[in-house]
Amino acid sequence: MTRIDGRDSAQLRPVTITIDYLDYAEGSVLIETGKTRVLCAATVEEKVPPFLEGKAQGWVTAEYNMLPRATHTRSARERSGRVSGRTQEIQRLIGRSLRAAVDMQLLGPRTITLDCDVLQADGGTRTAAITGAYIALHRACSLLLKQGLLAQHPLHTAVAATSVGIVGGDLMLDLCYAEDSRADVDFNVVMTSGHDFVELQGTGEGGVFGRSTMNALLDLAEQGITELLARQQQYLAL
Amino acid sequence: MTRIDGRDSAQLRPVTITIDYLDYAEGSVLIETGKTRVLCAATVEEKVPPFLEGKAQGWVTAEYNMLPRATHTRSARERSGRVSGRTQEIQRLIGRSLRAAVDMQLLGPRTITLDCDVLQADGGTRTAAITGAYIALHRACSLLLKQGLLAQHPLHTAVAATSVGIVGGDLMLDLCYAEDSRADVDFNVVMTSGHDFVELQGTGEGGVFGRSTMNALLDLAEQGITELLARQQQYLAL
Amino acid sequence: MTRIDGRDSAQLRPVTITIDYLDYAEGSVLIETGKTRVLCAATVEEKVPPFLEGKAQGWVTAEYNMLPRATHTRSARERSGRVSGRTQEIQRLIGRSLRAAVDMQLLGPRTITLDCDVLQADGGTRTAAITGAYIALHRACSLLLKQGLLAQHPLHTAVAATSVGIVGGDLMLDLCYAEDSRADVDFNVVMTSGHDFVELQGTGEGGVFGRSTMNALLDLAEQGITELLARQQQYLAL
Amino acid sequence: MTRIDGRDSAQLRPVTITIDYLDYAEGSVLIETGKTRVLCAATVEEKVPPFLEGKAQGWVTAEYNMLPRATHTRSARERSGRVSGRTQEIQRLIGRSLRAAVDMQLLGPRTITLDCDVLQADGGTRTAAITGAYIALHRACSLLLKQGLLAQHPLHTAVAATSVGIVGGDLMLDLCYAEDSRADVDFNVVMTSGHDFVELQGTGEGGVFGRSTMNALLDLAEQGITELLARQQQYLAL
Amino acid sequence: MTRIDGRDSAQLRPVTITIDYLDYAEGSVLIETGKTRVLCAATVEEKVPPFLEGKAQGWVTAEYNMLPRATHTRSARERSGRVSGRTQEIQRLIGRSLRAAVDMQLLGPRTITLDCDVLQADGGTRTAAITGAYIALHRACSLLLKQGLLAQHPLHTAVAATSVGIVGGDLMLDLCYAEDSRADVDFNVVMTSGHDFVELQGTGEGGVFGRSTMNALLDLAEQGITELLARQQQYLAL
Amino acid sequence: MTRIDGRDSAQLRPVTITIDYLDYAEGSVLIETGKTRVLCAATVEEKVPPFLEGKAQGWVTAEYNMLPRATHTRSARERSGRVSGRTQEIQRLIGRSLRAAVDMQLLGPRTITLDCDVLQADGGTRTAAITGAYIALHRACSLLLKQGLLAQHPLHTAVAATSVGIVGGDLMLDLCYAEDSRADVDFNVVMTSGHDFVELQGTGEGGVFGRSTMNALLDLAEQGITELLARQQQYLAL
Repeated sequence: MTRIDGRDSAQLRPVTITIDYLDYAEGSVLIETGKTRVLCAATVEEKVPPFLEGKAQGWVTAEYNMLPRATHTRSARERSGRVSGRTQEIQRLIGRSLRAAVDMQLLGPRTITLDCDVLQADGGTRTAAITGAYIALHRACSLLLKQGLLAQHPLHTAVAATSVGIVGGDLMLDLCYAEDSRADVDFNVVMTSGHDFVELQGTGEGGVFGRSTMNALLDLAEQGITELLARQQQYLAL
Repeated sequence: MTRIDGRDSAQLRPVTITIDYLDYAEGSVLIETGKTRVLCAATVEEKVPPFLEGKAQGWVTAEYNMLPRATHTRSARERSGRVSGRTQEIQRLIGRSLRAAVDMQLLGPRTITLDCDVLQADGGTRTAAITGAYIALHRACSLLLKQGLLAQHPLHTAVAATSVGIVGGDLMLDLCYAEDSRADVDFNVVMTSGHDFVELQGTGEGGVFGRSTMNALLDLAEQGITELLARQQQYLAL
Repeated sequence: MTRIDGRDSAQLRPVTITIDYLDYAEGSVLIETGKTRVLCAATVEEKVPPFLEGKAQGWVTAEYNMLPRATHTRSARERSGRVSGRTQEIQRLIGRSLRAAVDMQLLGPRTITLDCDVLQADGGTRTAAITGAYIALHRACSLLLKQGLLAQHPLHTAVAATSVGIVGGDLMLDLCYAEDSRADVDFNVVMTSGHDFVELQGTGEGGVFGRSTMNALLDLAEQGITELLARQQQYLAL
Repeated sequence: MTRIDGRDSAQLRPVTITIDYLDYAEGSVLIETGKTRVLCAATVEEKVPPFLEGKAQGWVTAEYNMLPRATHTRSARERSGRVSGRTQEIQRLIGRSLRAAVDMQLLGPRTITLDCDVLQADGGTRTAAITGAYIALHRACSLLLKQGLLAQHPLHTAVAATSVGIVGGDLMLDLCYAEDSRADVDFNVVMTSGHDFVELQGTGEGGVFGRSTMNALLDLAEQGITELLARQQQYLAL
Repeated sequence: MTRIDGRDSAQLRPVTITIDYLDYAEGSVLIETGKTRVLCAATVEEKVPPFLEGKAQGWVTAEYNMLPRATHTRSARERSGRVSGRTQEIQRLIGRSLRAAVDMQLLGPRTITLDCDVLQADGGTRTAAITGAYIALHRACSLLLKQGLLAQHPLHTAVAATSVGIVGGDLMLDLCYAEDSRADVDFNVVMTSGHDFVELQGTGEGGVFGRSTMNALLDLAEQGITELLARQQQYLAL
Repeated sequence: MTRIDGRDSAQLRPVTITIDYLDYAEGSVLIETGKTRVLCAATVEEKVPPFLEGKAQGWVTAEYNMLPRATHTRSARERSGRVSGRTQEIQRLIGRSLRAAVDMQLLGPRTITLDCDVLQADGGTRTAAITGAYIALHRACSLLLKQGLLAQHPLHTAVAATSVGIVGGDLMLDLCYAEDSRADVDFNVVMTSGHDFVELQGTGEGGVFGRSTMNALLDLAEQGITELLARQQQYLAL
């Protein structure tokens, strides 16, 4: 079976990673997977959210946003005071995924915010954001280390993510938009460098799925994430 | 191992279902699982959202809300124009889960809204909402059938949900709040009466998880959901 | 003259009071008057609003809300940042009415919030809320006393409320929705156990009213409130 | 007993009425009662709110607003999307009061909006707004008559309003701010030219009140409103 | 060429200035230019915005608002949480223009807010607001001086403003609404008593403009502002 | 005098223009002036705003936004329902400037929206946005022409923009952020290819300016814009 863009079912799209894309952010990455492009910027601030005050530990959070013309047709900006459920769900997922990599005591009483702005969207923006934001986060922590603000690097694992799904009966890795929009089952999978799961979100709105299908999809995801974890290693400044 | 409320690790909390709790809604259920209480009300409206206009099919959607004093301390009402990410994420999950049970062509050009208001919260509110809202939805559809507005019942499967997790190293079914708040891994699982998955959301913020752990958790969830599906059957008017 | 539900013109609807309906609130009551059902929850917080800081006195406030399917047709939730004038007017009325019962010096520097959530609405929701919230407030104060946080009970009177009106030329006590919606004159009356008025709101949009009519309506209201005050006494823990 | 501004307890403040204060509005009045100044503008629009569409009748509504520096200290503008409960309560009161004077069938399918902007506030702004807005409304209707858009004047009564209260044990008419802010009981009373009540709002947050006190206060209000009704007659164009 | 209201092209509309229009504001002016009427109120508050805290200097800011019936047809109030771009642009212009007149060190750590509320609008509201607000600001500063709160008057220049434009090929001073709405080029000009520019905003949406046209328009503006500066001097209390 | 980045006072920063940066937009440009980078995307929609319906002409509008980490420190996203005055002012300026280039009859009943998202900000973002958006707009129109949707190119002139100012007494072209933030006088100038002005905004918050200074600044601006207009020509597809 050949896919819409000529890939094999178990093949990732080409990944391009541009580090230090921004001049001012403590860490930044432009990650491209096929036509999907996400600009990830890490900001370090010497403060913590109220619920962590006085607890001698840090915090990592994320914001996600699509530029209006990231997609085939223009979408309105989320300026009206109502951030959509989709946006909130995604930025919560990114934040949780990255926090799984961080030793908050080692990070100390500071917050790192990962801004993930989607310049162009062709499916897989949330997983590209996680994979890219991890690099930006790592580089920001390395900078703190270099500046003597940290004694030890606070990231104890890498995290990367991809999507898998069932489209027209076929299991596929790293869905592009055309595939995603007609998928019967869709999984977003986040894994560590130790090949454990951090997050697993499977949904079957167009069709339910049994246990063995699920296991085959997770095999596919694990293979793709293994490749992405290898790519990340080339961009981690120490 | 005995749990905080004396249950076995594989035991659901007591479930109480009160049907037709409201006088005006087309379908309504008060579902209680332990101290968690969710009021589910189904409203039928003879209109569809803009993206379905002219398509001769229906829609099912959900709203989720917690009353301010559902919890140990009071939470502010979500009135300021910013509905929290948690609330949006939950109501999207409920909507998707129920839509998996519905044949939208059979439903015809009408919308059924499931309002899930949490009167009291002791963990598992989103899964209780799904299990209860399915009954309310079913009763509303049966009413349409009885009124001659539908020719055929549009629900082709039942759906029910529960949570499982790892707390202090132990795998547990149907977490109460005290367990949920210190769980290392937490899954929400939605299944059909055919024992297929509809939604699967696993998160390991406090600790990652491997494939075999995941499979053991899903076994536990499947057992609990099987019980819940049996309970639902007693309350479906035909 | 017989009313829509068979009552006499001077007869209250059946009143059911369920105390301690909630497990976590400091005081709670589910009050039902006919088909109207209001869940009243009292929350004690050890803080005061800014305008009372440093003044060694307490505060009592209320919030009012209708669940979307409390009524015959579904109403949108007030989540968009604009709480309706009706809602604000009602919660201000509830707050003022209850404050008339409280010695704020005795209460000390803490705030009690009464959340009045209307599960089902068949007219008279604001007066049911006042009558029920008084009980929840009293029970919360009694708890503070029992916990040794108060030296003396801070409520110096009871307050209860009902509505009266002119419908089709007849004076009626405790209007249900069908009556209220075609009333020419409508009064909400709040009285103390000493039979003094706390609040009096009479409106004649569909028809004005003279002084003698007003006095006859107030007689009717006083009679109804006397009954309600007696009912409240059965549920006040001391 | 002499009052803070030298008046008798049963004496209104000086009233100044400037008609046609604005060049573009269909009717407008600047009403001053003592230092309180309210600009009332009537706008006629050839449309009705959705709930009246196709019903061949009109609508009258009001908006109320205080300029930031109407008072001794500056208040923030209500621009943040949350109009205060006080503002909403007042503008609903003004609208209901004026609607009591209008035959909506005679008005026909059009809406008259009364904008009541408080340029300066020294107590009694809502009652001054009602008294002034009635004149603006009357003049707008007279204009419609003159333009041949109406066959008959749609106002069947005049309405005017004032406040009364108990301050330091004394009953007083037309409270200024210094009196109002220390009143134990406060009534806003709206009456027709036939001396019937349209609205009656009595509140005793600082002290409850019995029936005879209430009747004495209403006598005082009736006397003041009688004077105001006479003043209005001088400014009604026919 | 004669203009719509009979003026010469280089003639200002009649200007009326009423000082101390309000009883409570520290400075206030009702300025009328033709049918345009703007109420300018200066409020002094003993605090500064966060970015100036601890810097021993003051701040001057402005808010601009049109009453709903200031214009030929009614406009909605800006209450929904979205203040229009036009309003924000104008109030930022007024604030910047007035700050150019103030020595912030001499003013000391306090804020003066100029509320400019347009009672009626016939073009030129923003320039009338600047010209009037300057007087209100000056009077408020003079009051601080008289009260001994300031050692020296903090205004080192006067500022006044007017508009000029090209309408149907003719250069005109002080455009009224009918002229402004069909102008090809429109300038708002703010100048000091030393005849320097503070702000210059020229826009040619309906037609671009060259350098010599611009210079002719600025000559016209300077002439008008010279007259306005002279008028202001008559109302400055010292 | 040498500037902070080594430029002459009359020298533009290096300009880089990347056309067709996006795959889906009808026209797109990434424009970089020094460290300032603005992504301009043109979207064509076959509809017009309500005020143009039925008028057989088109519309051009713009939105402007800065990514949170465009600057040295992170700024919050404008999601709360209150778009800042600065943002609104800028996007109105961009829209007006581009509309001056368009024959709306030739464009026909469609809207072109220019989204200008600032990826990185080092001063001059609004003028870079205008210069870049013009190219995106031109390319979008050329596409419509090529697709046969337009008979004639609707742009009758080019527009480009830059800033000039007085910093430390020196007149400078194309201010970077460090210069802009300490400028005494600051002009944004928009000109056509015919060297006429479209918009001129000069502000002297830190210091006023006379006519001859203004003329010298405009000479400088004209020189810079002439260079930019030449650069634009290289990227206009026909």
